Amino acid sequence: MTRWPLPEPMRLALDEAAAAARMGEVPIGAVIVRDGAVIARAHNRTRALPDPTAHAEVLAIRDAARVLGQERLEGCELWVTLEPCAMCAGAIAHARIARVYYAAGDPKGGGVEHGARVFEQPQCLHRPEVYAGMGEAEAAALLRGFFRDRR
Amino acid sequence: MTRWPLPEPMRLALDEAAAAARMGEVPIGAVIVRDGAVIARAHNRTRALPDPTAHAEVLAIRDAARVLGQERLEGCELWVTLEPCAMCAGAIAHARIARVYYAAGDPKGGGVEHGARVFEQPQCLHRPEVYAGMGEAEAAALLRGFFRDRR
Repeated sequence: MTRWPLPEPMRLALDEAAAAARMGEVPIGAVIVRDGAVIARAHNRTRALPDPTAHAEVLAIRDAARVLGQERLEGCELWVTLEPCAMCAGAIAHARIARVYYAAGDPKGGGVEHGARVFEQPQCLHRPEVYAGMGEAEAAALLRGFFRDRR
Repeated sequence: MTRWPLPEPMRLALDEAAAAARMGEVPIGAVIVRDGAVIARAHNRTRALPDPTAHAEVLAIRDAARVLGQERLEGCELWVTLEPCAMCAGAIAHARIARVYYAAGDPKGGGVEHGARVFEQPQCLHRPEVYAGMGEAEAAALLRGFFRDRR
């Protein structure tokens, strides 16, 4: 059997997640792509900074906004290894991200297809297209390994 | 009639909101208090930075975490002039803020008593106590004036 290769941005997001684990941070990575080019990549850094808002998605969005010199990231894609939480889903909406690709769903903490379902609320002023599941096995394995090693 | 004076942290949050308006930012202010002392204060700066996540609450939480040198703000209070959105409510939960005081409710964008109702979801790992309404008239007047002047 040949598995279809992962798209490059998701591979990079998984690399970021693996880098987070090596630094003792929860292994979640995110990449922002515009016109086919990676303009920001980040992983969780809540412990190192310390900053409870320093999820991979928030850091990547902040970097991309700085790179582009504008608060709206219209036309950009966000690739992330785990379903965004409510905070990150809100940040994605505020940033006007066009498309979100996430690998693994997160029943315990997700805010897109679980819980707060931020994009489905009438208060959400921008709804990205959302595609889930690519790289799911790899992303989940990184998280499982991380929490197993810390027990 | 004598109106009961606003608590000092809410007065400071309103001052921050007024400062935001003077800078062309949406007039919302936030203050973080620990053991009766203000440890962080901020207002919206999404345009100036530019950073779509730079809401008053997020900036105050990031500052407080830096000041305390830890990602969890246990025992801290957040005072903010408007009902937090889903992003900010998520940040408040991640930060383990003990108590949230907000002035005006926000039916159009709020994520606490409206829409995503972040703190009511099973995915929310920390639920602060929430008190609403103090300073409501003052906070709403700042927002109304700001949007009226920009029309």
